[in-house]
Amino acid sequence: MAKKAIVGIVMGSSSDWDTMQHAAQMLEQFGVAHEAKVLSAHRMPDDMFRYAENAQSNGLQAIIAGAGGAAHLPGMLAAKTIVPIYGVPVASKYLRGEDSLYSIVQMPKGIPVATFAIGEAGAANAALHVIAGLALHDADLAKKLEVFRATQSESARSMNLPGY
Amino acid sequence: MAKKAIVGIVMGSSSDWDTMQHAAQMLEQFGVAHEAKVLSAHRMPDDMFRYAENAQSNGLQAIIAGAGGAAHLPGMLAAKTIVPIYGVPVASKYLRGEDSLYSIVQMPKGIPVATFAIGEAGAANAALHVIAGLALHDADLAKKLEVFRATQSESARSMNLPGY
Amino acid sequence: MAKKAIVGIVMGSSSDWDTMQHAAQMLEQFGVAHEAKVLSAHRMPDDMFRYAENAQSNGLQAIIAGAGGAAHLPGMLAAKTIVPIYGVPVASKYLRGEDSLYSIVQMPKGIPVATFAIGEAGAANAALHVIAGLALHDADLAKKLEVFRATQSESARSMNLPGY
Amino acid sequence: MAKKAIVGIVMGSSSDWDTMQHAAQMLEQFGVAHEAKVLSAHRMPDDMFRYAENAQSNGLQAIIAGAGGAAHLPGMLAAKTIVPIYGVPVASKYLRGEDSLYSIVQMPKGIPVATFAIGEAGAANAALHVIAGLALHDADLAKKLEVFRATQSESARSMNLPGY
Amino acid sequence: MAKKAIVGIVMGSSSDWDTMQHAAQMLEQFGVAHEAKVLSAHRMPDDMFRYAENAQSNGLQAIIAGAGGAAHLPGMLAAKTIVPIYGVPVASKYLRGEDSLYSIVQMPKGIPVATFAIGEAGAANAALHVIAGLALHDADLAKKLEVFRATQSESARSMNLPGY
Amino acid sequence: MAKKAIVGIVMGSSSDWDTMQHAAQMLEQFGVAHEAKVLSAHRMPDDMFRYAENAQSNGLQAIIAGAGGAAHLPGMLAAKTIVPIYGVPVASKYLRGEDSLYSIVQMPKGIPVATFAIGEAGAANAALHVIAGLALHDADLAKKLEVFRATQSESARSMNLPGY
Amino acid sequence: MAKKAIVGIVMGSSSDWDTMQHAAQMLEQFGVAHEAKVLSAHRMPDDMFRYAENAQSNGLQAIIAGAGGAAHLPGMLAAKTIVPIYGVPVASKYLRGEDSLYSIVQMPKGIPVATFAIGEAGAANAALHVIAGLALHDADLAKKLEVFRATQSESARSMNLPGY
Amino acid sequence: MAKKAIVGIVMGSSSDWDTMQHAAQMLEQFGVAHEAKVLSAHRMPDDMFRYAENAQSNGLQAIIAGAGGAAHLPGMLAAKTIVPIYGVPVASKYLRGEDSLYSIVQMPKGIPVATFAIGEAGAANAALHVIAGLALHDADLAKKLEVFRATQSESARSMNLPGY
Repeated sequence: MAKKAIVGIVMGSSSDWDTMQHAAQMLEQFGVAHEAKVLSAHRMPDDMFRYAENAQSNGLQAIIAGAGGAAHLPGMLAAKTIVPIYGVPVASKYLRGEDSLYSIVQMPKGIPVATFAIGEAGAANAALHVIAGLALHDADLAKKLEVFRATQSESARSMNLPGY
Repeated sequence: MAKKAIVGIVMGSSSDWDTMQHAAQMLEQFGVAHEAKVLSAHRMPDDMFRYAENAQSNGLQAIIAGAGGAAHLPGMLAAKTIVPIYGVPVASKYLRGEDSLYSIVQMPKGIPVATFAIGEAGAANAALHVIAGLALHDADLAKKLEVFRATQSESARSMNLPGY
Repeated sequence: MAKKAIVGIVMGSSSDWDTMQHAAQMLEQFGVAHEAKVLSAHRMPDDMFRYAENAQSNGLQAIIAGAGGAAHLPGMLAAKTIVPIYGVPVASKYLRGEDSLYSIVQMPKGIPVATFAIGEAGAANAALHVIAGLALHDADLAKKLEVFRATQSESARSMNLPGY
Repeated sequence: MAKKAIVGIVMGSSSDWDTMQHAAQMLEQFGVAHEAKVLSAHRMPDDMFRYAENAQSNGLQAIIAGAGGAAHLPGMLAAKTIVPIYGVPVASKYLRGEDSLYSIVQMPKGIPVATFAIGEAGAANAALHVIAGLALHDADLAKKLEVFRATQSESARSMNLPGY
Repeated sequence: MAKKAIVGIVMGSSSDWDTMQHAAQMLEQFGVAHEAKVLSAHRMPDDMFRYAENAQSNGLQAIIAGAGGAAHLPGMLAAKTIVPIYGVPVASKYLRGEDSLYSIVQMPKGIPVATFAIGEAGAANAALHVIAGLALHDADLAKKLEVFRATQSESARSMNLPGY
Repeated sequence: MAKKAIVGIVMGSSSDWDTMQHAAQMLEQFGVAHEAKVLSAHRMPDDMFRYAENAQSNGLQAIIAGAGGAAHLPGMLAAKTIVPIYGVPVASKYLRGEDSLYSIVQMPKGIPVATFAIGEAGAANAALHVIAGLALHDADLAKKLEVFRATQSESARSMNLPGY
Repeated sequence: MAKKAIVGIVMGSSSDWDTMQHAAQMLEQFGVAHEAKVLSAHRMPDDMFRYAENAQSNGLQAIIAGAGGAAHLPGMLAAKTIVPIYGVPVASKYLRGEDSLYSIVQMPKGIPVATFAIGEAGAANAALHVIAGLALHDADLAKKLEVFRATQSESARSMNLPGY
Repeated sequence: MAKKAIVGIVMGSSSDWDTMQHAAQMLEQFGVAHEAKVLSAHRMPDDMFRYAENAQSNGLQAIIAGAGGAAHLPGMLAAKTIVPIYGVPVASKYLRGEDSLYSIVQMPKGIPVATFAIGEAGAANAALHVIAGLALHDADLAKKLEVFRATQSESARSMNLPGY
């Protein structure tokens, strides 16, 4: 990306990319400058803190963080920056993301993480929510979002059921 | 509120106020102009749609929506406006908000709802996330948020355990 | 269908058809005039409201609505019409329909949705329940339903277990 | 009730009455002739079968059945009559009705039970759904239901939040 | 089986046989005369009642009943006979047998169903529990059970882990 | 009890007595000689093994074992004796007996525990199941059980609902 | 405590003390030098990291960390030190500690947290496990632990059931 | 292994080896002398007790025990020895290890089992926790653990996302 990233997409492992790329694709589609990287809360705690500490000065306006299982990445980033954090529960192997969801959404009063659905729908929607926030101050982006919505509606409207 | 509301707090019933007032108090504390009202998805569907349709032109930059059980309010508002929606799962009588949480957070790809913890912590944090979003464009608010965070840290730091 | 539909089958996406066709087949088998279409609560909210508003004047006596995840379609239709709504929780990718079930069945007092099992059994049974309601005023249909039941019993009765 | 009952309300024990009376009150309010009785699937199996066998000839057009725990009453009635069955999961002592809900809603293909929310909301809504079915053939009842809905909307609309 | 059956194995559908044959094999292995048949609570309610009513006079000393989803077979048999009932939760398609388990084990005070694990382990163990009950009055069977246990222990003891 | 116990009731702690006394009362009511004692799997493992080892020679024909949380008592007794074990999940403080239920019912193939409902209903029903087993060889007890069932049915039949 | 602490007890808030004091009491009872303090992962992230970084040089041989909801404290400490971490899920208001348990126990491969039961039992047991680890190198402590176990067994053995 | 084992890895069946080998590999990698064997709580109860009784005199400083379903092995070992027990919930066929987790982690006050994640992550982490405990008294091992952590961090740090 040539433009300086205003949104960061981070995740606990490269194996989360299958899920998190849906956030990246959405930002890409809307032309929102972003970066994406592995940033493990448990294996790279200091990098994670540094990332959060520098988020504001680096110009980030939102961080989308995905993690699975005991998913601490979104909440710990939120503890370290006032840049808004958007959490995506990545499906875990045995508990299908129920553990990821609880670990991300049940934050105590004082440190918020905006949480989305388990898996790829959540990743895409985290990006769409960030875009909606940016669109409040960017008429072009708002326009694009309206078009995206209209296209989406049209696409649903044109779905056919065999025989009907 | 004298100033024109830029944040709407809506909920399915006045019985949700016990929970949702924590969102209102937080906005109040930060001096963010807001409105609060009952807006039932199931009992006032047309009002709800109108509220969403007018949100943008009414100057709302965020809507915090709380509901319990089969909680459709946040998701249906999100379907009708590009103003960002923040959902708060209100605890239900028998399933303790597990139903509310699933009904709010598991939105399909395309229509996002930023979801927070079940109950009062979620209500307060939805407001704090909205504030963080506003603070991106309001240095004073950013400052206040930093102070809030620092005070909160100090308050935790000064907690004593009897005998230690 | 030549005859004017008296039952509507609607669903959030064409991907729900695998499940919802079991409702259609059942109505077909009983000769109940019906229509089937995609009607997404989140991507086509206005179409959905219009569909509900016109249901009565269009002669619909029942609407069978299937959706998955944060499944708002049945409840929102119910909010907009007094035509009885029958909800089918479509299995979701990660939570196997537990989220769909809660989102549909846990409706607040005042706006009912008759809910059935997760998946194809639920779709077929929603249709059978509608048929039973119609049969109260249609002796032929009642007769067919009795025959269906008897055949079904016979079929169970004639099941063999290898070696017994 | 002077008029011959067209709706039966049955439940596994008199302890379910706290929940199930909400169905009775709703039918009462709409002037729908009904009967209510204890009919335990496990302690009165023959009475239960007889009740189901006679339902049609006794003029019942719907049976609302409430039970808790391993709740077999709605499903077993459904197995014995083509009169439509409406099931209400009564909250259980330890599992808060999750067991009741699963025991009622997860019926196999072929024998439907229309299921509603756990507890009093479900009881009231089962009655409302029955009323909506009756209203298809009773313009007065349809009118009353419209009024009920309008009143309910008005009541929600007039809810106030302290300070707003 | 030449000998008169003293144990009945029944199940809601022939599709349950994959699970329930593990009960049959165990009884076979111990030489306990038994019968196995499909007996659907919902599709063959009268057959089911008759089966339970005749169980005692037919010489049955135990009935092993397997069912899935809203599994009413074990509990309804128990309601109709004092012959001991052993319930096996068959895994359901979407909820993996959690619904089956709750529908079987959560019986109200007064009508017991002895419940075992979800799936084939439960089917085999239901048979083993029945055998243990028979063995109280049959020294040969008791001996066989002791041998079975010893063999089982030996088999576990002789398991090797590659490299250890 | 003057007569030699043929049924043992054991539990992990005296705090389980509130639940388990319902098993004792049932046996008492039917005149079945029994003993009751605390026998903690975790705090008295050797006593527990000895109890199981001596069960058969001591004349026990059934052991009813209640425990909560990680409830290992029923399964470990079953591992040590061929006397049939009946497990009662005692409700736990935080997980309401869901942990107790899983720990008792999900036994692996080979070592069966007959499991009953969480709490007092389960305790009473475990006793009733044991009684039904004994009644196979005791015509008087069978008679008493028939009477118990008839009385229970009558009691349900005579339940009144206020106003109906 | 005069002696230098070798065990640290930390928790997210002073409200966790009701639970976590059971760890402290156990260490006290065994004479293990310890410290206890509030250390919030979300409100005091830097303090938390510093605590973990200094744990080893400060002579800590174990850290017992309790937290509720999205409980990140144990896992984040584990990410920052090789001193063994013992996690205690504190019961949360709505989900009874199921969220706390998942957030603590489901750590990814590479960073371990030894997890114990929800609530006070877990707090006490975390301390007992730490004591058992210390006892491997402290014959006196091992002796005390043996005595504790024996006393505990005796206490269970001497429990009486009224009437037995 | 030439050196005398100081860590025992035990599991209920050879089918658990897929999971538990991750514990063995970790100990192998760190050069910690260990043994691994099948030790079924339910099929080899006496062997299990003997193993626990001899653990201390055999020089074991930790036992890692894995089991699935009604997983009693870790808790029963803990009841019989003061050598610290580390429990690994092996995923079960139908409930994905939720039953295993509850059966292991929810131990009553007095007998601790340190519990880890469901499946292979839990097995590896149990070993890593044991290693961290040994490292408190073994500078070489501590060094290795630091290197392991650093390598792990480096490996996470060097993960690439395609296109970023």
